[in-house]
Amino acid sequence: MTLSADATTTSLDVLCINTIRTLAMDAVQAAESGHPGAPMALAPLAYALYTRHMRHNPADPQWPNRDRFVLSNGHASMLLYATLHMSGYDLPLSEIKRFRQWGSKTPGHPEWGHTAGVETTTGPLGQGLANAVGMAAAEAHLAATFNRDGHSIVDHYTWFIAGDGCLMEGISHEAASFAGHFKLGKLIGFYDDNRISIDGTTDLTLSDDAAQRFASYGWQVLHVADVNDLGAIDAAVAAARADTSRPSLIITRTHIGYGSPNRQDSAKAHGEALGTAEVALTKQAYGWHYPEPFHVPDEALAHWRGQCARGAAAHDDWRKQVIAYTKAFPADAMEFGRRMQGNLPAGWQQAIPVFTPENGNIASRNASGVVLNALAAKVPELIGGSADLSGSNLTLLKDSARFSAETPAGRNVHFGVREHAMGAIMNGMQLHGGVIAYGGTFLVFADYMRPAIRLAALMKQRVVYVFTHDSIGLGEDGPTHQPVEHLTALRCIPNLTVLRPADANETAEAWRFALQHTTGPVALVLTRQKLPLFDRSSGNGAASEVARGGYLLASCGCNNPQVVLLACGSEVGIAMRAQQTLLDSGVKARVVSMPSHELFLQQPVEYRNSVLPPGVPRVAVEAAHPMSWHRIVGDNGTVIGIDTFGASAPFERLYQEYGITAERVVEAARAHLG
Amino acid sequence: MTLSADATTTSLDVLCINTIRTLAMDAVQAAESGHPGAPMALAPLAYALYTRHMRHNPADPQWPNRDRFVLSNGHASMLLYATLHMSGYDLPLSEIKRFRQWGSKTPGHPEWGHTAGVETTTGPLGQGLANAVGMAAAEAHLAATFNRDGHSIVDHYTWFIAGDGCLMEGISHEAASFAGHFKLGKLIGFYDDNRISIDGTTDLTLSDDAAQRFASYGWQVLHVADVNDLGAIDAAVAAARADTSRPSLIITRTHIGYGSPNRQDSAKAHGEALGTAEVALTKQAYGWHYPEPFHVPDEALAHWRGQCARGAAAHDDWRKQVIAYTKAFPADAMEFGRRMQGNLPAGWQQAIPVFTPENGNIASRNASGVVLNALAAKVPELIGGSADLSGSNLTLLKDSARFSAETPAGRNVHFGVREHAMGAIMNGMQLHGGVIAYGGTFLVFADYMRPAIRLAALMKQRVVYVFTHDSIGLGEDGPTHQPVEHLTALRCIPNLTVLRPADANETAEAWRFALQHTTGPVALVLTRQKLPLFDRSSGNGAASEVARGGYLLASCGCNNPQVVLLACGSEVGIAMRAQQTLLDSGVKARVVSMPSHELFLQQPVEYRNSVLPPGVPRVAVEAAHPMSWHRIVGDNGTVIGIDTFGASAPFERLYQEYGITAERVVEAARAHLG
Repeated sequence: MTLSADATTTSLDVLCINTIRTLAMDAVQAAESGHPGAPMALAPLAYALYTRHMRHNPADPQWPNRDRFVLSNGHASMLLYATLHMSGYDLPLSEIKRFRQWGSKTPGHPEWGHTAGVETTTGPLGQGLANAVGMAAAEAHLAATFNRDGHSIVDHYTWFIAGDGCLMEGISHEAASFAGHFKLGKLIGFYDDNRISIDGTTDLTLSDDAAQRFASYGWQVLHVADVNDLGAIDAAVAAARADTSRPSLIITRTHIGYGSPNRQDSAKAHGEALGTAEVALTKQAYGWHYPEPFHVPDEALAHWRGQCARGAAAHDDWRKQVIAYTKAFPADAMEFGRRMQGNLPAGWQQAIPVFTPENGNIASRNASGVVLNALAAKVPELIGGSADLSGSNLTLLKDSARFSAETPAGRNVHFGVREHAMGAIMNGMQLHGGVIAYGGTFLVFADYMRPAIRLAALMKQRVVYVFTHDSIGLGEDGPTHQPVEHLTALRCIPNLTVLRPADANETAEAWRFALQHTTGPVALVLTRQKLPLFDRSSGNGAASEVARGGYLLASCGCNNPQVVLLACGSEVGIAMRAQQTLLDSGVKARVVSMPSHELFLQQPVEYRNSVLPPGVPRVAVEAAHPMSWHRIVGDNGTVIGIDTFGASAPFERLYQEYGITAERVVEAARAHLG
Repeated sequence: MTLSADATTTSLDVLCINTIRTLAMDAVQAAESGHPGAPMALAPLAYALYTRHMRHNPADPQWPNRDRFVLSNGHASMLLYATLHMSGYDLPLSEIKRFRQWGSKTPGHPEWGHTAGVETTTGPLGQGLANAVGMAAAEAHLAATFNRDGHSIVDHYTWFIAGDGCLMEGISHEAASFAGHFKLGKLIGFYDDNRISIDGTTDLTLSDDAAQRFASYGWQVLHVADVNDLGAIDAAVAAARADTSRPSLIITRTHIGYGSPNRQDSAKAHGEALGTAEVALTKQAYGWHYPEPFHVPDEALAHWRGQCARGAAAHDDWRKQVIAYTKAFPADAMEFGRRMQGNLPAGWQQAIPVFTPENGNIASRNASGVVLNALAAKVPELIGGSADLSGSNLTLLKDSARFSAETPAGRNVHFGVREHAMGAIMNGMQLHGGVIAYGGTFLVFADYMRPAIRLAALMKQRVVYVFTHDSIGLGEDGPTHQPVEHLTALRCIPNLTVLRPADANETAEAWRFALQHTTGPVALVLTRQKLPLFDRSSGNGAASEVARGGYLLASCGCNNPQVVLLACGSEVGIAMRAQQTLLDSGVKARVVSMPSHELFLQQPVEYRNSVLPPGVPRVAVEAAHPMSWHRIVGDNGTVIGIDTFGASAPFERLYQEYGITAERVVEAARAHLG
């Protein structure tokens, strides 16, 4: 082990680098928890990126044209925190001293929206890499949309660091394949090739040739033989920039726990504090002679922040460019500003269609396709597609081009059979700003993208999932394709709003909600099969009530029903037929459409009680697992659902066999009435 | 488009191949639903495999040493059904005529346990490929364990066909990387390279160099330029067999909808019936002159079944080998038989330890590690590991070797940071038989493997998940690592049993249950933090009551409690403290430990009522989303849970901040008592 650096590296460079290393060691030691090894290894790379290569302005982490940096191996959070502090972001040393403590700005893994300069929440491996792909895709799209000859107001790089864990995860395949195909040339990633995973050396389980693998995706692959060689990093970055037609992966040899006499290159350096003795030995090896922990040498801080001053100058230059752009293209400049601020265009809601009986029976997926296309004409930031199910999810924008390497201004993204990356790329696009990303697949395959959905929810990102084929109602494809548990499994994700509209007009309102809802993702859950359109003329609830989650769709002509029938989606029609039977036999039954449990449960109790009068028995019906309904139906009620897997057959037969029928609703209602 | 074949192909070969094609077209047409294109394309390959290359005996689909075949692109189910019928499996033509109908043996996607000769349930893309990897791993392990010099009773190949969808999915990366590293040389796969996906030509989104990609994983890559060239298939298979040190991928150029004048090589051939006119035109192109649908020419059937007779002979040979093996190694032969039948060894339960107060407070993950190691000594079929968290999940078998290319008899599998493939490989191992597969990761990353969990549940496979770090109790790693919604999301998967034990002895009982439970996967949900050991001496419930899902752990000294406190896992200790406070103040509170909702809800109502007396208020506490508890607690109760994301801090602080405390349980209990 040597602490050598290349000939171009100054002692001040080394001091800056060792400041990151010692801050990381000290913070983990103080918390007695965390991951010191990767920050110690990667300190030279972070130093090089933040002081030499990235265009960023610590004084304005929201600068729209900043370079984006993603630490995909999020457990190396102290690398990022130390670097942000040194660069001059709003992250004082006092917060670094509170690493991993309640309420600090330095949680165990980087959290977007929590710490200035953190571009995305990482930790679950591989997600960050895919987020970076999404950011680079958004950049390419916005550049193509807004830049004009001589005016490049969108022109930045996206950088990431990923470890062997990220690269082992399947999402890295999906995202890298996507990035290669779409030739995202301004995406530059570093593979932290430390050859150590948690279980031990990576050769326990990994022998991929990463260079060959990324070459197979169409990436340029470069090498840095020693991360301490700043000159080699500079050269690799120059080569990466020079090839604008391919993303670049720079395979960088590092040593986990670099400099620790007894921990370097061992799995022990990964996820626990070094211990005070080893911290002391390591500092000695660094020639770090400051006795107190968390020491930041003045000259290191001054040098580092001086280097970052270039960022402020670049930011100023960009502002001048925007002024010139605004003069030349005032409407475009307005539009760019609006989109980067995340505001919807004036009058966008006028685009939302109202369906009438003349439209006939229509599957909610079809209604969604109509609404999405109508919205897309007014809301140019809508960009998205499907994981190779465009024709089934009806996510295609008929008047837009395909997003491709040649036509990045296109808005139809062919995500490929890559649900997981789709979710994470959507997150990256949304975090970049300037777009509203949507993506479709079958509801059953929400499972494939669940980790990305969770992160969208955790980061409160406005992304829209178009989940079609939402139950046994898809019919013949059978149990592998029929969701049963998925609605429950989605309804319990915090911050996620699930909307399962009952007819075309509820679908339109669900889309309205999705675009207006800026504090979390929305999942639209849609049928394959046709649905009736409900009459809204005779005093029944308006479709706009969707935003309240649940509402009185069909009253019994009075305010004192004997039984309340609840349903959503395709089962509302069943509840309506059951109501008719009950009314015909003199039972006062009302129908409540409840497209969103989450939204309904957020309503004031007075409203909830007006919809679901206390003491009145409730019968809920959904072609899905009943678990999520119990909290709504309560003891004095029945949930008619499905708690086994589905089967392959025409859907009408399945509804009969699984007992999702009006007859069964009627029976259950009568049973409550004694 | 030509219907040519190579020089070695006879007209009888072509007739057999076209029989598959026409059966597929006719079945999809009759169902007016399904996927004709891939069967039409792949018919020559299936014909070659089943009649020339695979060692299988249609009369005994359970022959332990049969070759395994996996159709990873499960939508091509009619390829498999037609092939099974032609080969002589128990799948009569009458069932093929009922393709995709209620109760038929020919569901939309192949379902294991439903149709003879179907080795795994496929449809969700990429899963089958990973199942095949698991089967090949099990074969390697069992061969190394049981074969002796001159005796190879375990010696078979595993074959798969995968499409571009499978290869785009991330799981294909994880599984292929695993197979390459572990040098699974008896795994031979075909890439159905038809260059068409659902959205259109694959070049809309895919430009991977698949050959280079699989070479990067250490696979041998071979090519068949035209799937209709049976000689080329034979040659590629010979080359694949010849290299026993690497898995082989044979990239096979196919044409979706082969022979259809208006659909071949188009996405329209993928997922819908051709239409009667196009079926007629295609049959004409094939020179198929039989007017009625579902025609099987006698000479084709005779030829095909004649070819398959080789399988019965091979099976007989194997039986003779087993007899010789039994003579030479009677104990090993007994053991092999036992394991392939899935019976546990006599006396295995004696290995299960009982923990005593001398063991001190112990995290349930640690208890699990102790129990697993004790069991492993008696149950040699236990094989598994962790997705690179061995030291955290405590899944390592201390007395066993590592599973590696050099030591495939080892039982410690380093799955790598590949949760999704781990789940699917476990399924494949289990489907192969002879092993009981377990796999660990953090509970939060159950999301990464959820599609594989679902398939384990759908196929009712006995696999065991070791999910540790089960709540905010993991502390500093923060919200990206803290499960909140996961327990609810797992509890709603049909056939999956979730067990969250409260102390070391419940953990031991949970393992006992997991090994005994042969009709579905079991998820053990375990803490990172230490837990107290509950006193079982004073008439309180025994830990063996875990098998009932919920039981009276601590009574109030009477049968008429005023309030029931319910909890599981780490929150049982909280409930116990709350009980003490309530008892001290004269409130008769009992504590029910409920490690498994699923098991409890399966108990007779009398038992449930004895544990949870009707009318007595219930207070449940769990450091997780409350949704799953409402059905148990009901209207006259309170669920203390967490419906937001967690945070990074020491866990004691988090329990306070999130209100998962004995004080809050006491408050809630008192509120119910008025």
